[in-house]
Amino acid sequence: MAIDMHVLGQQAKQASLVLRQMDTEAKNHALLAIADTIDANQAVILEANSIDMEDGRKAGLTPVFLDRLNLAKRLQGVTADVRRVAELPDPVGQEYEKRTMPNGLQIRKRRVPIGVLGVIYESRPNVTVDVAALALKTGNAVILRGGSETLKSNMALVDTIRRALENAGFPADIVQLIRDTDRRYVSDLLRLSDYVDMIIPRGGSGLHTFCREHSTIPVITGGIGICHLYVDETADLDAAVEIVHNAKVQRPSVCNALDTLLVQESIADGFIPRVAERLAQDNVELRVDEQAAALLAGAANVQPVADGDWDMEWLALILGIRVVPDLATAIAHIQQHGTAHSDGILTTDPVSIERFLNEIDSAAVYVNASTRFTDGSQLGLGAEIAISTQKLHARGPMGLEELTTYKWIIIGEGHVRP
Amino acid sequence: MAIDMHVLGQQAKQASLVLRQMDTEAKNHALLAIADTIDANQAVILEANSIDMEDGRKAGLTPVFLDRLNLAKRLQGVTADVRRVAELPDPVGQEYEKRTMPNGLQIRKRRVPIGVLGVIYESRPNVTVDVAALALKTGNAVILRGGSETLKSNMALVDTIRRALENAGFPADIVQLIRDTDRRYVSDLLRLSDYVDMIIPRGGSGLHTFCREHSTIPVITGGIGICHLYVDETADLDAAVEIVHNAKVQRPSVCNALDTLLVQESIADGFIPRVAERLAQDNVELRVDEQAAALLAGAANVQPVADGDWDMEWLALILGIRVVPDLATAIAHIQQHGTAHSDGILTTDPVSIERFLNEIDSAAVYVNASTRFTDGSQLGLGAEIAISTQKLHARGPMGLEELTTYKWIIIGEGHVRP
Repeated sequence: MAIDMHVLGQQAKQASLVLRQMDTEAKNHALLAIADTIDANQAVILEANSIDMEDGRKAGLTPVFLDRLNLAKRLQGVTADVRRVAELPDPVGQEYEKRTMPNGLQIRKRRVPIGVLGVIYESRPNVTVDVAALALKTGNAVILRGGSETLKSNMALVDTIRRALENAGFPADIVQLIRDTDRRYVSDLLRLSDYVDMIIPRGGSGLHTFCREHSTIPVITGGIGICHLYVDETADLDAAVEIVHNAKVQRPSVCNALDTLLVQESIADGFIPRVAERLAQDNVELRVDEQAAALLAGAANVQPVADGDWDMEWLALILGIRVVPDLATAIAHIQQHGTAHSDGILTTDPVSIERFLNEIDSAAVYVNASTRFTDGSQLGLGAEIAISTQKLHARGPMGLEELTTYKWIIIGEGHVRP
Repeated sequence: MAIDMHVLGQQAKQASLVLRQMDTEAKNHALLAIADTIDANQAVILEANSIDMEDGRKAGLTPVFLDRLNLAKRLQGVTADVRRVAELPDPVGQEYEKRTMPNGLQIRKRRVPIGVLGVIYESRPNVTVDVAALALKTGNAVILRGGSETLKSNMALVDTIRRALENAGFPADIVQLIRDTDRRYVSDLLRLSDYVDMIIPRGGSGLHTFCREHSTIPVITGGIGICHLYVDETADLDAAVEIVHNAKVQRPSVCNALDTLLVQESIADGFIPRVAERLAQDNVELRVDEQAAALLAGAANVQPVADGDWDMEWLALILGIRVVPDLATAIAHIQQHGTAHSDGILTTDPVSIERFLNEIDSAAVYVNASTRFTDGSQLGLGAEIAISTQKLHARGPMGLEELTTYKWIIIGEGHVRP
C-alpha cells in the first residue's frame, strides 16, 4: 500500500511540537529507556537482522557490505552509544548574545531544536539508532529512510525505539521510518518542505547530488573528501612519512583519508622514495606524475597518473603523488581538485603555515597532522551526525549543537518603533 | 547575445580567491573608494536612472513602484550607507572555540568568507550598492540579478563600483551584474553550484518559492511574515493599544508588520473597541471573527473574516482580529497560520511569557513590544542583507557575520590517529 508522506510529515511536525517542550532530564530518561528496550529486545532485532543478512547473501552482496549490515556483534556498542548521548550536555535552551539596546529593549538568542529532520542513509542499521538518539537529544523529530538491504533490521529497531518512547511518555512519531524502499519516497521526502526543516544525506556522492538537485528543503551535503597533504622542504620528514602513512592507511574507506600527496620539488629526491617504501609495506598503490615516476623507477605498485586521477576520492589503498615547485602550485592544485573537506600542510615555516591556512578554503585545514582527525569524536564534539562540506549552517563535523538553530527573544516594556 | 553564466561563475570564484586575501584595511579603503566614485559619477547614474523612470512611466508602473525605482533623492543616502559599512567591525578572521585536545592537537575555528553569493532582487536599485558593499566587507564576491525595470540604473551603478574596485587594486569581478533580465538567467544562476555558495532572494513569496524549488545551491528564504500579537487579560491595555497600532500602521508594507491580532476573550469587550477606534484614525480595515464583529457592530471599515484571511500577509492597512479563550488557543493559531517570522505576546504574567517564548517557534519572539523591531539596525547588527525565516545557517535579521562561515584549523606536531 502506498505511503502517504504528508501524513508522515504531519505526524513528525506534531511530535516535534510536543518534544520541544520536554526538558533535558525527560529526554535523557527517554534515551536510557531506548537503550534498555533495545537490550531487552535483542533477540527480535537480531532475528530480523539475520533475515536481512540471509537475503543479502542470496543477492550476492560483498562480504564488506554484509559486514556493515551485521548487527550481531554491534548491538552492545549501539546501546552504549545511546547511553553516551544521554550524558552529553543538552544545547537546547542555552541563551547567548544577551544585550540591552539603548532604547531599553532586551535582546538575546536562545538555542532551539530545528524541528523535523529527514535523514537518508544506506546500509548500516546502527545509523538508525544513532540518528534517532541525536535527534531526540536535540529536540528534533526525524523521518528515516534507510537502505533496502536493511529494511527488516530497521523496522525492528524503529519499532523498539517507538515502544520505548511511548513508555517514557513521548510521542512515538518522534522517530518514523519510511517502511518501503521505493525511491519515489526519497523524492517525496525531499519535497515535504511544509513539515521537514533539514535533509541529511549519508552516503555516496550520487545520493548527495540527487538530494541537492531535487530537494526543496535545505540539504546538508558533504562526506565527499578528496584530501591533500603538501610536504614542503622545511618539514620534519620523519614525521611527514608517518603522517602520510596514517592519513592513507589507517582507514582508507572513509572520507577524511588522504587521496593526493603533493611534495615540494627540492625534497622530492629524498622524500618520495622513503614515503613510497613505507606505503609499500601496506600495499598502497601509487599514481604518480612524471617526476615522481623517475624517482620510483622499478618499484612495484606504481603507475603513471591517468586523466582524472587528481579528481579521485580513492576510498581505497591508492594514493596520487605529484611533485610541485612551491606552495603556490600546491595551493592552486588543491583549489582546483579539492572538495573543501580536509587538507593539510607539513612544514615548519610559519609564513607558509599562515598562507596555507588563509588560502585553503576547506572545512578542516591541517598543519603537521593527519587528515584522519576530521571527525566529531576526535575534535571533541562528543557525537557526530554528519560531516558537512558545504558552507552554510555548519562546516566539517556536525555534533549536537549543529542540530539546533536559534530564535531571537525580544523583551520590551511597551516598546514601539519610532 | 547570450550570457555564458559559467564564465560569470568562474570569474566570481576567481575574484573571491583574491578578495579573501585582502585585509580589513584594504577592504575598507575599497568601500570608501566606491562611495567616492558613486558621488563623483552622480550625473551618469542619475541619467541612467531617469531613463528607467521614463520607461517605467510609459509602461504604466504605479507611483509607489516608481518611487522605489527613483535614485534622485536617494543617492546621498546610498553612499552614506557604504561609508557606514566601512566603519563596521570585520567579522572575517576572528578565531573562536580555541582548545587543546588531550593528545595535544590544537583546534580552533576561524571565521571566513562564504565565497560567492548570488543575490536576486526586484525593483530598488539602492539594493545593488547595499549588497555589493556588504559582500565586499565580508570577503564575498557577488553575482547580482536585479529587476528589469532598473536594468539601466543597475548597469550604471555596477560599472561605477567595478571601476572603483579596480582603482583600489581589487578585481572588478567581485561585483558582477547579469546584464539581461531574461528569466532563464535566474534559473541558470540557481544551478551554478560549482561556483556559487549561497543564493539570497529578496522579493515576494513567488521569488522565494521559485528559488527554493529550482536551486541546487543553498537558498536563504525568508521575508514572508504573517505576524501575530496575542493580548491576554493581564496585559497593560494602554500600552497594548499603542503596540498594536505601531505594529500595524508604522510601515504596513513590510514583512514585520502585524497581520493578525489575537485577543483573550475575557478582555475582548473592553479592548477590541478601543484598539479598533485607534486603528480607525489611520483607516485600518479590520477582518474580524464573529465575537469581535459583535463588539464592533456599526463601525466603519469592519468586515467579517473570510476564508484564508488568517493566512494573509496583508502588506497593507488591513488587520485580522480573532477572539480566543486562552493562551493555548492563541499558540495553536500562530502555529497553524504563522510563517515563523515575528510573533509576540502582550502580558504581565511570567508563566505565560515563558510558555509563549518556548512554544512559539518564530525567528523573532516578542514580549510587550511591536513586531516592527525585527530588523538588522533595530537589533544592533549594523547592517542587514536579508531576514531569514528558514532554520539553517541564520534566522531572522542577517548582518555581516551571517555572510561568513568558518573553517576548522587543526595544528599538530606530527599527530597521527591511533
